[in-house]
Amino acid sequence: MRCVGILGGMGPQATILLMQKVLDAVPADDDADHIPLLVDQNPQVPSRIRRLIEGTGDDPAPVLADMARRLVGAGAEALAMPCNTAHHYASAIRAAVKVPFLDMVDLSVRRAAELAGVDGRVGILASPAVRRIGLFDAPLARFGVQALYPEDEGAMLATIRRIKTAGPEPETASALRAASNGLLQRGAQVQMIACTEFSLLADATADGATAFDTLDVLVAAIKAFAVGDGASAGQ
Amino acid sequence: MRCVGILGGMGPQATILLMQKVLDAVPADDDADHIPLLVDQNPQVPSRIRRLIEGTGDDPAPVLADMARRLVGAGAEALAMPCNTAHHYASAIRAAVKVPFLDMVDLSVRRAAELAGVDGRVGILASPAVRRIGLFDAPLARFGVQALYPEDEGAMLATIRRIKTAGPEPETASALRAASNGLLQRGAQVQMIACTEFSLLADATADGATAFDTLDVLVAAIKAFAVGDGASAGQ
Repeated sequence: MRCVGILGGMGPQATILLMQKVLDAVPADDDADHIPLLVDQNPQVPSRIRRLIEGTGDDPAPVLADMARRLVGAGAEALAMPCNTAHHYASAIRAAVKVPFLDMVDLSVRRAAELAGVDGRVGILASPAVRRIGLFDAPLARFGVQALYPEDEGAMLATIRRIKTAGPEPETASALRAASNGLLQRGAQVQMIACTEFSLLADATADGATAFDTLDVLVAAIKAFAVGDGASAGQ
Repeated sequence: MRCVGILGGMGPQATILLMQKVLDAVPADDDADHIPLLVDQNPQVPSRIRRLIEGTGDDPAPVLADMARRLVGAGAEALAMPCNTAHHYASAIRAAVKVPFLDMVDLSVRRAAELAGVDGRVGILASPAVRRIGLFDAPLARFGVQALYPEDEGAMLATIRRIKTAGPEPETASALRAASNGLLQRGAQVQMIACTEFSLLADATADGATAFDTLDVLVAAIKAFAVGDGASAGQ
């Protein structure tokens, strides 16, 4: 099996969730059946939200590039990053190393486009930073799909910060479900959870929405790469 | 904060549990408050049980030494290993790198000796491999403490293998509690969970026993090292 390097710590709980999902994705009789990972659990990556929304703080790009180089130096044969917002810096990661980067955003856009079809709408449950940087808009538009975002950005940001501090709670799940209901009413039948903090809240999307989690898309790509099925792993 | 490298994957679920415990040990307002870890989640380390009990299979020592070197090369400033049995190879790890090795066995022996006192007995809930290699016996004897082990070794081994396959279940928790009760009846008031698979079973020790988990001892040492309180981190 091939080892996948994880640019982690954004946040650290989401990285642990990714590792648990990778473990659960493998039917195993013994340790050796499981997928090898090299995980840089680095909670000190400069805040993406602070940099992209508030315009302050250090640039995460050189830190992420350095993490990528160190992971590859230590033996990682591909890289993955369980943080949607940080994919804004994907080009810096790609430029730093020669191994494949399993791009959660690119893979999720393809999945969303398959589900929504041409002229479809996809609701994006994410940090406001994701909308401001247009992380999904142009890639979805290439498939003829329109991205919709929750109207109350302040509530989304407060929810993410609360989850980072206190873990998943009924209140934060309610806030996410309200946002999901709003998107459904505006015509976004297909929705994606595109914030790994929201991934910690199970089943918090609207009844009637066809929702998937970008983190699960990444887990499938990690598994495909590790077991050698390169064709479905993406780049 | 200083980064701790984790020789992980033995088993992978126990490594995730260690990471969760490290996360939970830090009161955090934001990601950046958390402890940085570099985790080699390597489930392909040759089986310690197969090598030490059955006398077959590859030697884990050179694999662990290589993992240690790669973690330090990638930036780890100390190393820790959430697997008691694998501490049989601690000297190979120490010889491979110059950074401190936070020794879960050494730290747990000190804790057990404090609790049991001179001429005390300590019950050790562990893999049969741990008894056969005498991992705890001589270190405990130096404090005048006697190590006691569960009588039904086959049940212990079957329980570990079942947890590695299926995760924690009521049946495996019952098997562990039966072993703990047996140790208590033989005079081991103080007991330690010295198998990271057993760490996955919460509260499965006998009522009336003073039990602690070697994994929690390691978490405390990781936290102390990371925040710079080197004196209590051990070597």
